[in-house]
Formats: sequence, C-alpha cells, structure tokens
Amino acid sequence: MSQIGPPHASTLPQPTRRDREILLGQNSHAIWLTGLSGAGKTTIARALEARLLAMGRLCAVLDGDVVRTGLNFGLGFSEQDRFENIRRIAEVARILVDAGVIALVAVISPGEAMRQNARRIIGPSDFVEVYVRCPIEVCRQRDTKGLYRKAQAGQVAQFTGVSAPYEPPEAPQLVIDTDHATVEQAASTVLQCVAGRLSAPSPG
Amino acid sequence: MSQIGPPHASTLPQPTRRDREILLGQNSHAIWLTGLSGAGKTTIARALEARLLAMGRLCAVLDGDVVRTGLNFGLGFSEQDRFENIRRIAEVARILVDAGVIALVAVISPGEAMRQNARRIIGPSDFVEVYVRCPIEVCRQRDTKGLYRKAQAGQVAQFTGVSAPYEPPEAPQLVIDTDHATVEQAASTVLQCVAGRLSAPSPG
Repeated sequence: MSQIGPPHASTLPQPTRRDREILLGQNSHAIWLTGLSGAGKTTIARALEARLLAMGRLCAVLDGDVVRTGLNFGLGFSEQDRFENIRRIAEVARILVDAGVIALVAVISPGEAMRQNARRIIGPSDFVEVYVRCPIEVCRQRDTKGLYRKAQAGQVAQFTGVSAPYEPPEAPQLVIDTDHATVEQAASTVLQCVAGRLSAPSPG
Repeated sequence: MSQIGPPHASTLPQPTRRDREILLGQNSHAIWLTGLSGAGKTTIARALEARLLAMGRLCAVLDGDVVRTGLNFGLGFSEQDRFENIRRIAEVARILVDAGVIALVAVISPGEAMRQNARRIIGPSDFVEVYVRCPIEVCRQRDTKGLYRKAQAGQVAQFTGVSAPYEPPEAPQLVIDTDHATVEQAASTVLQCVAGRLSAPSPG
C-alpha cells in the first residue's frame, strides 16, 4: 500500500488565493484604518463589516483593542512592543487576505515605520491605508473609553496624542474627517474607494 | 452635522460568525493535525484544502513551518517558545473560524498542554484534533526535509522524536496511520469525520 507522498501526490490542483477569491466573488485586500484613540476606527470598521456582509462580501475585523486580549496579550505600549503589536496584526491580515477574506484593521498604529512594515507584510497592492482623522480636542471630548481622562491624570503611560506621538500617514489612499462625517458617510466613502475590488475576479 | 457615534449608530445589524457561515454555506471549525515531522500533516492539509475547495468550501492552511517565517518569526524551539508558537497559531485559527473559514492547522504541537491550550483558545466544539500517526522509523526513512539526518548528526537541537519528546494526543477525534493510508484515503477519512460541519448552517 502506498505511503503519504509529497504534496503533489494529491490528484487535485493546489488551490491558490485567486481560486478562493473566485469562490467568494471578491478581490481580497486589507483596509487599514489608522488614527487617534476615539477617532472612530472601530466604529467605521464595524459599519463596513455590516455593509459588506449585506453585499454578500466576506470580511473580518481585526480590532487593536481586541487583539491585545488574545494574539498580542502581554505586549505593552513601548515603541518596541507597539511595533511588534502592529507586525503581528499585519501578519494575520496577510493570512486573511490569502484566504480570500477582506481584512478590516482598526488599530491606532501611530508610527509611519510600523505602518510601512505592515504595508510590506500585507503587500502594497493589497494594502488600503485610510487615515481616520479627528482633532485631538474632539477625541478628548468624546473619550468613549475614558482613556483621555486617565491619560491626562497620568494614569495611562505612553498614550498616543497625549504622552506618545502620532505620525499622520504621509500618503494615505483616503482621509476621513470624522468630526464632520457620519459613520454611514465614512463607510460609503471607503466602499467607493475599494469598489473595484468588490466585484468577482476574472478567472484564469 | 452629526459626528461618528458608537457602533450601534450603524443602521444595519452587526454581523455575527453565524451570518458569515450562512453566507459561506458551511460551519466553520479548526482541523488540528498533530504528529511527528514527516508524518504527513502538511500533505494531508493540502489535500484537504483542494478537496474542500472543489466542494465549494472556504478553508485556509496554517502550516507550522510557514508561520515560523512570518507571524512567529524569531521564536525558537525551547519549551516556552514552542508553547508560544502554538498559542499564536491557535489565536489565528480562532480568528479564521470567527470569519467563517475552516482552518486547517498542520503543526507538530508535541505537547498535550499546548494542544489543550489551543483547544481552549479555539473552543472545544470547534476544535477537531487529528493525530497523524507514523512510526518514527518511517518518518526517518522519508526524511522529506533532511531534518532527521541533521538531528541525528546533532545539527538540530530539540528535534521532536529525536532530542525532544512527542506526547501522543490522549483523546483525538481521529487517528490516521500514514504508514498505511494514502493521502487521498487520509483526506477522505478526515472529511467523513467533519461531514456534518460541511453543510449549510440553518439560519436563525
């Protein structure tokens, strides 16, 4: 009786990302939402998730806060840990994109170098950088998680925009000003930007 | 003009894993292939990938060797690093399963504790443990990657089965003896085991 052979021993051709994209009727990519805490990244990602599902498109949200309780548990907020935090998120986004899935990444990712690294890992043509822009005074007023108050009181070290820098993206595909746009407007703008990727890929 | 509000500001309901499973017509889960180097884990995973795609099912292979060049780059083969290696792979499998995708994990995962941790992270009901069993003499003869020869010569430290232990799973859902089964037989056996998960989930 024959033994397990090398991968080519299988009688079916090995599936590629393209095959999965054809199955799903979409071109996979990563939408990378960067911006200050409270700017609206997760809110926009969740709205996009709902809109994409309604269109029959498969996506997955990678939320920085959530990932820190799982894959990136134990990482802190030092420059080095933040870089590693972003690197791992980018690697997971890459895995999702290879699986044919649209990755919606909502993570502060405050430094240009760490975002460039994410772009390299994911691949420039699959990386859609969206700057979710909001004046820090507005973020501070919203203070959805109460973190600005804590940071102001010195209870949160290295808080982006307060005690740690945020470097705005140098050349994002899209800038959304969330002190003006509603969630639905923001989601529509992103969907317009990626519209060409949401139709079925041509086989072969 | 209204500002970005909290997530519930979106007019559409927030999608769940179940919604994605319905879109894909499958119940997502993780098939965890454990066994010695050379036992045939990756070969079986790749055959499963091809068979599942031919059935219109979406899956993604997480291969231990590949993940070590990306997400887990820098981790070594100490007990602690191996545990962390498996933990991160399990977290990614969890993310894929949440996205509705069938995760095919091919990784030695030599210890019962690290596999139990993976089962906990992924969730027991979504974790299908398959023991890809092969006598070490047969793996050594195959030596697809030339690693047994190197380990024997002392050039690979902590090599499972040679200089590091392999603890067989205590209660795997499935055992496949790859010194007897062909790739296609092995894939068929796994697909029979998960058949109930490959049909469309009932909505609601």
